[in-house]
Amino acid sequence: MATGTNLTLSTRQKLERAQRAASRLSGLTTLRKNQLLLSMAEAIESQMDRVAAANQKDLEASSLPEAMRDRLLLTPSRISAMMAGIREVAALPDPIGEVIAEWRRPNGLQIRKVRVPIGVVGIIYESRPNVTVDTVALTLKTGNAIVLRGGKEAVYSNQCLVEILGAVPGLPEGAIELLDSSTRDSVQELIQARGLVDVIIPRGGAGLINFVVENSVVPVIETGAGNCHIFVDESADFDMADRIVINAKTQRPAVCNAAEKLLIQQSIAETYLPRIAKKLIAQGVELRGDDAAVGIFPEIQPATDEDWSEEYLRLCLAVRIVASLDEAIDHINRYSTRNSEAIVTASESNARKFLRAVDAAAVYWNASTRFTDGREFGFGAEMGISTQKLHCRGPFALAELTSSKYEIVGNGQIRA
Amino acid sequence: MATGTNLTLSTRQKLERAQRAASRLSGLTTLRKNQLLLSMAEAIESQMDRVAAANQKDLEASSLPEAMRDRLLLTPSRISAMMAGIREVAALPDPIGEVIAEWRRPNGLQIRKVRVPIGVVGIIYESRPNVTVDTVALTLKTGNAIVLRGGKEAVYSNQCLVEILGAVPGLPEGAIELLDSSTRDSVQELIQARGLVDVIIPRGGAGLINFVVENSVVPVIETGAGNCHIFVDESADFDMADRIVINAKTQRPAVCNAAEKLLIQQSIAETYLPRIAKKLIAQGVELRGDDAAVGIFPEIQPATDEDWSEEYLRLCLAVRIVASLDEAIDHINRYSTRNSEAIVTASESNARKFLRAVDAAAVYWNASTRFTDGREFGFGAEMGISTQKLHCRGPFALAELTSSKYEIVGNGQIRA
Repeated sequence: MATGTNLTLSTRQKLERAQRAASRLSGLTTLRKNQLLLSMAEAIESQMDRVAAANQKDLEASSLPEAMRDRLLLTPSRISAMMAGIREVAALPDPIGEVIAEWRRPNGLQIRKVRVPIGVVGIIYESRPNVTVDTVALTLKTGNAIVLRGGKEAVYSNQCLVEILGAVPGLPEGAIELLDSSTRDSVQELIQARGLVDVIIPRGGAGLINFVVENSVVPVIETGAGNCHIFVDESADFDMADRIVINAKTQRPAVCNAAEKLLIQQSIAETYLPRIAKKLIAQGVELRGDDAAVGIFPEIQPATDEDWSEEYLRLCLAVRIVASLDEAIDHINRYSTRNSEAIVTASESNARKFLRAVDAAAVYWNASTRFTDGREFGFGAEMGISTQKLHCRGPFALAELTSSKYEIVGNGQIRA
Repeated sequence: MATGTNLTLSTRQKLERAQRAASRLSGLTTLRKNQLLLSMAEAIESQMDRVAAANQKDLEASSLPEAMRDRLLLTPSRISAMMAGIREVAALPDPIGEVIAEWRRPNGLQIRKVRVPIGVVGIIYESRPNVTVDTVALTLKTGNAIVLRGGKEAVYSNQCLVEILGAVPGLPEGAIELLDSSTRDSVQELIQARGLVDVIIPRGGAGLINFVVENSVVPVIETGAGNCHIFVDESADFDMADRIVINAKTQRPAVCNAAEKLLIQQSIAETYLPRIAKKLIAQGVELRGDDAAVGIFPEIQPATDEDWSEEYLRLCLAVRIVASLDEAIDHINRYSTRNSEAIVTASESNARKFLRAVDAAAVYWNASTRFTDGREFGFGAEMGISTQKLHCRGPFALAELTSSKYEIVGNGQIRA
């Protein structure tokens, strides 16, 4: 087992403290963990001015463009939302200790599979300081220690939040560790620290996620990318299709479950495409399309090959005309990032085929792709949306921050 | 998404075929998959001579030491066991399509979490040719395509088995792909093929597993290492402790769930250590120990610091005297590889504390560590024993070769 031999002393000490804390956290009762969470919410509440002042220092030091500055900004209502988020996590059921399965073998061995914490969870994230608080709450609730590596733009905000959260009486030392964010070195150290860190969750843009995925020797839960499609088939209710397409494209275009591509069945393209195209253009959406789409509605700009793979994350949508359901499924399985994919159809058999054959974390029939979200799914919280197939897939929260252990009770059994 | 840009043409073609096959395999019914499995067993049965001849070529080309030659050898009874293994997998329940959870949201969305294949599973393994057949059966049953990279010593055996299994009528082309095993290049290619391969499972020695874990950009299920401990506490039934220690150490010393360390509580060390030491020496076990153990029983050789971390995989055992249950737990959590750990005690409270506090895939009270095994657990088969905390932990088989997908059915819902 490699144990991060190239770590600086400071990082090694932090990770070893986190590992010792994980051992203590795993033994805390649900009541104790909830008390700690409520104390954290109170601590932020009583020090809102301190948080705002630290955030102001980040904003003053920042040369970010306006849109990014907004992500960094902590207004009083955003700080209140963080506190409310902690209290919501405290109110959720505790997955730790759950007996996932239990059975008796013919030789009398009693086997129980129980849910346990993962151990030390590493989070690498970008500018939003609310991630600091959200992830601390979710990892504490699940009895894990957390090692945070935030963005350098939010250094004062994150430092202040970690000081406040970490000072809650009774929290084991090392339960929340914050790594230096001034250089990329600490990212490199964290993802190499196999044996000290049990999982890394990167949260941010494609550049960060790909760097972590390609360089980490610690297991990763990959989150993020979403080149999401909506297929409108010939039996679709056009009003419903309009609502879904417009919502999925325009309600929040910069997120991973926003629609990026629209597939329309050929037999309805002459009637449906001009109708939806006008509505999308009226909403400020830039349209691109294949030759058939451009032929029907010339305001659409020709798409290039790259368009079919691209995640725009802005008000841009590429349209393709497909002959059949099969062609739609093939196109999606070829180009999608397997996040969220939707069909709008009145045909149950077409819908069932689409739901089965499209390979994605979330597949929708007659609903917007924007629902791929832990809270929208009813989990009460969200850590991220996994786009990998191992460990968890789709929106994930508390249950996915756990592992399992087999407890076996015998009366002297030996193997023959 | 990286898609293995540095692949040779041959490997790329194989992986792309496997990816297309995965799409077709995911749609096969349980009946169809079971028919294919039974046809595979029949195909091997009718070509046992061909398999034996190919295996003979491997044995003739091999310069392996005798113990390794035995692992490579396919006797008629071993070939029959492979066939029986395929038929057992055919008889197991199919996890694919299982509805893991289903609920309705207040907005009317119906959400179902269903079990689906992972996609393309890569297996990197060493000399045992039975792994070829076992893993093909498990991945086919779960609707996955498989890419095999076997050991170079078994090249003829593996080639022959893959030809026989792959020729079964109705099996999608690409369902079983075998990579070149003459150099390590194909290992390097497979573990870099993110986007074409969904998971890599290395099966073999620590060198292979560490290489894969440290270099793969494809998610890995780590299997293998086991520095397993047995703690005999002061209330233990000595006869039971003898049986468990001797079984766990000697029944099959070269496997990962064999005991490597014995911890004895100080208060019984004077009486219990000489008794168990004599019995172990009579079984040919080499004993090492800490100063206290050597002081009590001078035939024990002094252990070095390295001994506490070492996985001997042979008839050698290191003994340590500990003052208390807490000291035993601390020692185990410090040195173990988190595979299988046991306590022998008549005290339920001590046992419960041990089961809870020891961080391992399988923790035992009054039973041998040797039971950490898919068949012994009742899974009917085994792919390996995961020593990581993500995706699965401990023995794993069919269910762990699956992922999940959310299917969401609405009637026009959009997000506010």
